Amino acid sequence: MFIIYGNFIHTPVRGELEVLSNHLMVVDQGIIVLLSSEFTNDANPTTLVSHVMSKFPGTTLTSLLFVSRHQFIVPGMIDTHVHAPQFVFHGSATGVPLMEWLHQNTFPAESKMKDVDYAKTVWKREASQALADEIERRRQRGYVGKINMDRNSIPEYIEDTQESIDETEKFLQYVLEKKNPLIRPVITPRFIPTCSPHLLAGLGELAEKYGVHVQSHIAESDDQMAFVEELHPRETDTEIFEKSGLLTPLTVMAHGTHLRPSDVQKLVSHRTAVASCPLSNFFFSGKILPLQRYHSEGLTIGLGSDLAGGYAASMLHSVRNSVIASRNIPSPQPGDAFDFRTGFWHATVGGAKALSLDKLGCFRVGMEFDALMIDVSIVEDGPPTHGVDTFEGDTTEVMFEKWVNCGDERNIKRVWVAGELILKRE
Amino acid sequence: MFIIYGNFIHTPVRGELEVLSNHLMVVDQGIIVLLSSEFTNDANPTTLVSHVMSKFPGTTLTSLLFVSRHQFIVPGMIDTHVHAPQFVFHGSATGVPLMEWLHQNTFPAESKMKDVDYAKTVWKREASQALADEIERRRQRGYVGKINMDRNSIPEYIEDTQESIDETEKFLQYVLEKKNPLIRPVITPRFIPTCSPHLLAGLGELAEKYGVHVQSHIAESDDQMAFVEELHPRETDTEIFEKSGLLTPLTVMAHGTHLRPSDVQKLVSHRTAVASCPLSNFFFSGKILPLQRYHSEGLTIGLGSDLAGGYAASMLHSVRNSVIASRNIPSPQPGDAFDFRTGFWHATVGGAKALSLDKLGCFRVGMEFDALMIDVSIVEDGPPTHGVDTFEGDTTEVMFEKWVNCGDERNIKRVWVAGELILKRE
Repeated sequence: MFIIYGNFIHTPVRGELEVLSNHLMVVDQGIIVLLSSEFTNDANPTTLVSHVMSKFPGTTLTSLLFVSRHQFIVPGMIDTHVHAPQFVFHGSATGVPLMEWLHQNTFPAESKMKDVDYAKTVWKREASQALADEIERRRQRGYVGKINMDRNSIPEYIEDTQESIDETEKFLQYVLEKKNPLIRPVITPRFIPTCSPHLLAGLGELAEKYGVHVQSHIAESDDQMAFVEELHPRETDTEIFEKSGLLTPLTVMAHGTHLRPSDVQKLVSHRTAVASCPLSNFFFSGKILPLQRYHSEGLTIGLGSDLAGGYAASMLHSVRNSVIASRNIPSPQPGDAFDFRTGFWHATVGGAKALSLDKLGCFRVGMEFDALMIDVSIVEDGPPTHGVDTFEGDTTEVMFEKWVNCGDERNIKRVWVAGELILKRE
Repeated sequence: MFIIYGNFIHTPVRGELEVLSNHLMVVDQGIIVLLSSEFTNDANPTTLVSHVMSKFPGTTLTSLLFVSRHQFIVPGMIDTHVHAPQFVFHGSATGVPLMEWLHQNTFPAESKMKDVDYAKTVWKREASQALADEIERRRQRGYVGKINMDRNSIPEYIEDTQESIDETEKFLQYVLEKKNPLIRPVITPRFIPTCSPHLLAGLGELAEKYGVHVQSHIAESDDQMAFVEELHPRETDTEIFEKSGLLTPLTVMAHGTHLRPSDVQKLVSHRTAVASCPLSNFFFSGKILPLQRYHSEGLTIGLGSDLAGGYAASMLHSVRNSVIASRNIPSPQPGDAFDFRTGFWHATVGGAKALSLDKLGCFRVGMEFDALMIDVSIVEDGPPTHGVDTFEGDTTEVMFEKWVNCGDERNIKRVWVAGELILKRE
């Protein structure tokens, strides 16, 4: 059990920032067990500790952390769509259409993940298992998929349909056997153009059998839409996913910028979520997701970096670009635009909802403690420390907004996952 | 005289990146006097020095710098529109319309620059003079203005018309008397809503008398356009600036997102440039500058941070957001979208043209040496160093693109202004 005393900032209600000033928080076994404003004017360690001990007699206190004036605690942000093997070329290759980009950069880079000591059909599973192992080793929370493709990719990267299904099942079993609640396997057909109906049906059966998450790409770009139309005349990719049993409440579909109204309704009715990746969409979609409207229609929407479709690894960029995108929807309707508060909500609460992580996204008693300690103080006369400059009179809310807009990883001083401190930087 | 040997990257032709691999550059008295590919395969210091000494006998070599494989030299970027006194609140206040934002944040923040020991009519001049002094002290290149407003601002910030003109003349004289070619005064009427026709006419006369630069804001947003229409029925702000003598070849007008076709033609015919500030425009303009089209119509366009209308101080953000903006022009025409190369051109060559700095923007013999040394190497196992990750096989061009998209000030290891090394970081 540990105590944190200071400022907490989160967005439990979409579009609204809540600053919990000088609050006392107690975390036990990864769960927030106390969040109190009782001591807002009294940060005396003795008082705090004796209060906590009287509330939870017989427990052991492991630490008491005071968060200073230029620091605050925020919920961990949730990246709902990221391509691990594309990290190598993030920041480059930003000038070509989607299908060309996939063939020129993505498929070759990803196929390098092949382990030459293994047969072709297993290489992708081995790599994905290694990623799950690494996430576990680093005590992070991570949902990992093994890509499926049995057509229209580069030859070295195409799998036999049945082997692709069998390998996926082995991968699901491998990750599930970890019995680590932080690591979950995700069924990952790349997208309709590279997956035959037979493969999709097989994956749909696995999704049902194991009750696991599903992810893919949906209605992303003109060239991808045209390819689906060519392969499956008169069917949208939403309809194809639906009949394959791949639209479930545990499914997160990336992009959705070219969804038709009936597709949106299908996703809503299956409680399938969308991972909105605004930076990637600027480059590859040729269209902006009407996030505000789809949210009001009942669609659950998280944010994703889509690394390397988007060039930025930090979720702060997804927040910033969701705001920029919201200002640029063709013929904006009043209320279509939103600000950093709504963007941050989608990066935290929205992402948690998208992944059915109902104990994450904001700070409430009974919820899991995934959090960052942010520091926006300036090191006087030192080398540059981070992009945030604060001044006398800046409120905690202003410091938070400056961090969302101008901050970077240098501001992150501590990271907790499920109550465990996994990064501490002085 | 000094020698640099290594990779130089610039965009002398719009949209085209030129990588000068392993080139020898010699700079003397701030001017590039030699740029040679003769020693691309021979970086022997003795050979280089003896070659340079034979070309320039009798001169003194002060240094010989080898730029390593993960480093490259780029031209200094030129911010053509930035509000110094708004630095204090950059990153905040991003959720309100322009006219409201000005009254709630900008005018109060700027009016704090007032020096209480001076009479109201001089405070702004004193602050601007102090800024010019500071830029000079730091050996930077900087063009500085003293804002003029004689109506429609907060009371403490409005000047008497004639005093505003007189103070401007004193400010021009103060800066011109420095006789420092790096520091120039700029006549700076804020924008039409806050400047009476009498004030504008007086400033137009000063522009002609002293032959100095002019800057202001033009056609920025719906609410500002509506205000101009109310104050000056049947006249655009372009027309009002024109008849005041403020559209000159030394004028840079910020934004221009709401220009009418006839306004664009007026700017072109006066050889007046536009400072495009894409990040700011996302928040305040409600419209995107058709940069590609205006460029093809002959308009000179630089990029600006518009700090704090835009929340990012680094010009890299202006480049990135110019690319994002280009992908989101309503009903884009083929060719409207451009990539990091064109964005970088506008931040260097375009900015130099906008400010009539004809010896800046790219690397050629005879041009001034304003440059940055960029380092994209990763510090293994150290704390995070910067947002750029490079991998084996990354070409210099890929490293440059990654820096433009993901880099930050940590990558800047040296800064030269007019050949003088003003920042050196190990």
